[in-house]
Amino acid sequence: MAVQPTRIGLAGLAVMGQNLALNIASKGFPISVYNRTTSKVDETVERAKKEGNLPVYGFHDPESFVNSIQKPRVIIMLVKAGAPVDQTIKTLSAYLEKGDCIVDGGNEWYENTERREKAVSENGFLYLGMGVSGGEEGARNGPSLMPGGSFDAYKNIEDILLKVAAQVRDSGPCVTYIGKGGSGNFVKMVHNGIEYGDMQLIAEAYDVLKSVGKLSNEELHGVFTEWNKGELESFLVEITADIFAIKDDKGDGHLVDKVLDKTGMKGTGKWTVQQAAELSVPSPTIESSLDARFLSGLKDERVQAAKVFKEGELARIWKGGCIIRAIFLDRIKQAYDRNAELANLLVDPDLAYFDSYRRERLPANLVQAQRDYFGAHTYERTDVEGSFHTEWFKIARQSKSNM
Amino acid sequence: MAVQPTRIGLAGLAVMGQNLALNIASKGFPISVYNRTTSKVDETVERAKKEGNLPVYGFHDPESFVNSIQKPRVIIMLVKAGAPVDQTIKTLSAYLEKGDCIVDGGNEWYENTERREKAVSENGFLYLGMGVSGGEEGARNGPSLMPGGSFDAYKNIEDILLKVAAQVRDSGPCVTYIGKGGSGNFVKMVHNGIEYGDMQLIAEAYDVLKSVGKLSNEELHGVFTEWNKGELESFLVEITADIFAIKDDKGDGHLVDKVLDKTGMKGTGKWTVQQAAELSVPSPTIESSLDARFLSGLKDERVQAAKVFKEGELARIWKGGCIIRAIFLDRIKQAYDRNAELANLLVDPDLAYFDSYRRERLPANLVQAQRDYFGAHTYERTDVEGSFHTEWFKIARQSKSNM
Repeated sequence: MAVQPTRIGLAGLAVMGQNLALNIASKGFPISVYNRTTSKVDETVERAKKEGNLPVYGFHDPESFVNSIQKPRVIIMLVKAGAPVDQTIKTLSAYLEKGDCIVDGGNEWYENTERREKAVSENGFLYLGMGVSGGEEGARNGPSLMPGGSFDAYKNIEDILLKVAAQVRDSGPCVTYIGKGGSGNFVKMVHNGIEYGDMQLIAEAYDVLKSVGKLSNEELHGVFTEWNKGELESFLVEITADIFAIKDDKGDGHLVDKVLDKTGMKGTGKWTVQQAAELSVPSPTIESSLDARFLSGLKDERVQAAKVFKEGELARIWKGGCIIRAIFLDRIKQAYDRNAELANLLVDPDLAYFDSYRRERLPANLVQAQRDYFGAHTYERTDVEGSFHTEWFKIARQSKSNM
Repeated sequence: MAVQPTRIGLAGLAVMGQNLALNIASKGFPISVYNRTTSKVDETVERAKKEGNLPVYGFHDPESFVNSIQKPRVIIMLVKAGAPVDQTIKTLSAYLEKGDCIVDGGNEWYENTERREKAVSENGFLYLGMGVSGGEEGARNGPSLMPGGSFDAYKNIEDILLKVAAQVRDSGPCVTYIGKGGSGNFVKMVHNGIEYGDMQLIAEAYDVLKSVGKLSNEELHGVFTEWNKGELESFLVEITADIFAIKDDKGDGHLVDKVLDKTGMKGTGKWTVQQAAELSVPSPTIESSLDARFLSGLKDERVQAAKVFKEGELARIWKGGCIIRAIFLDRIKQAYDRNAELANLLVDPDLAYFDSYRRERLPANLVQAQRDYFGAHTYERTDVEGSFHTEWFKIARQSKSNM
């Protein structure tokens, strides 16, 4: 228990929330923490003790959590986007007072933030939607922060954010007030879209170096390490170099080759493409990277997707009258006549123009390794069932320090 | 006035509506027509007289229009998507009876159709959302029809649709019941997305032939005419061949060279890309064609767009902490420091990697010519202000019959 009121509160103690709370505490701001599943609260307090007796105070019920924070209160939520955010706001609101401020640190759809800002303002609460980038590691040691919404709310926590954010020599802390409404979430969404593009670019470079250039993982590690010393220096190139150096802990060879080439995603890339289209902004790189993820995910789903539309019959009614009428549609109709269950036109012998492009193995395994590296998103393996998480960062750090 | 009840009604007498009404009448179905601006009603009746005393009956008020139709009534609406459809339904509903059927023939968003089907069902009315493809020419002489919604409603007008649709040797009339709800609109949306892709593919072929191959319009006409005799035979290749043969009526040379390279659009391509993303379906060709349209439209808008985001500041806060951190972001920040009003990063000297790709003139003029050819969407000129429409089809037909 805190003897004096704490400076700030944080609700939602999955990995990101725990790490951000420890980061805030380590900058000298006493913090109250709360989670619906109370074991997470104890876990966080335990970690705070181990990592240097950081001023983290745990609460098992929302009322004492809220009451422990100095007024006007600031509470950061780090819970899953969507309904859990609404639920958390509802829970906390019962104990908040006019002038208190709620900050959503998740990857939320910007219009949800605007709806909530309006809704809580009826109780006199302030609201921020704050993009947080940097994954687990960034949350603990310095993330990039994109707060948007109430400027007054921003001012209430500016001192904390300036210290908690990543610090870059010459250009200062990685935080700025983005703007009103859902702009913080919007900018984070675009940021994630750029991330999709960066990762696909690296995956394609990997694919060419490996498939055409026949480079081994050791050589790939060397190439990306070199690249990270020049113009291409960046976090994603750095972690990619790391990934190629990591050995499989369940068998021979390198772990990256055992990662299943089936990319996951959480929505921000999709939203970026949809919003870009809405705003008439060309986004070819992000679109391509999203398509690559879709394609990598289609392995099991093609059969089912083919049942949704009666494509053969559509090819027939589009043969005349319409703008896209073409004799080529005949071949499509014939392909479905031959095999009504055809999963994809590309597998019909007469239409298999793209046979040479079909690849049993895509470079999506690298994207999955990257996602697990920076976001603990887990991956599947080619050889063993289940979801796996590897502490890529720790392993890479250890092997670097052993060099 | 009709002595006996007519078989069907049509509300909304812009070009598409007029032509579809005349098509229906020419197949032997007496039709009642109505339009809020009554001069369009008289115009349609006049055209029906001229085109062979077709059984088209005009009404200046919605009540007598509705009452003139045999029960259960079928009324096709061809009005602008969105609010005008709701308004027309409201107007007609006052006089309709249980079992009557409303058909929306516009390019409507499929969820609007599902909402309306549900709403009118409370009055006992049936509803169809029917995609109509083929432009003006198709509407008059045989469109491709994509009806979706109430199967009972479809059965009520199946006899008409089977005769009105384009007839293709060996595969029959270009119409089939698509499915429930908004499926007719959804399929039409995807159809239009494919159309975007087809047109961009042709525009790129044109661009290479013209810019790299240095082909004249006469030669382009020859190439596309040849292509239309083989595997590539299609409506869009055919009209493209036509377009290259048409001389400018306002000056020297060919009209296609005077068409402004700034492509318009009405939303179905955008919806297709957004829905594909929503459903995790890769759609690279349609995305690229949409991007090409966006880019062609950016000529005047870049300056304004650049003001929306403080890109330089974002480049700064993404330099540390976040996933996309990279030293390249420094250059972006510097570019904005040099010129805060920078319209696009590509125009900064240090970042102008794509200078060689920048093109004063894009092949979008051909896309505009095609859109005006099949859909009367109008185009702008490079030399004269205003919106222009050319009767490409008539001119092409005349010059063909003169050969």
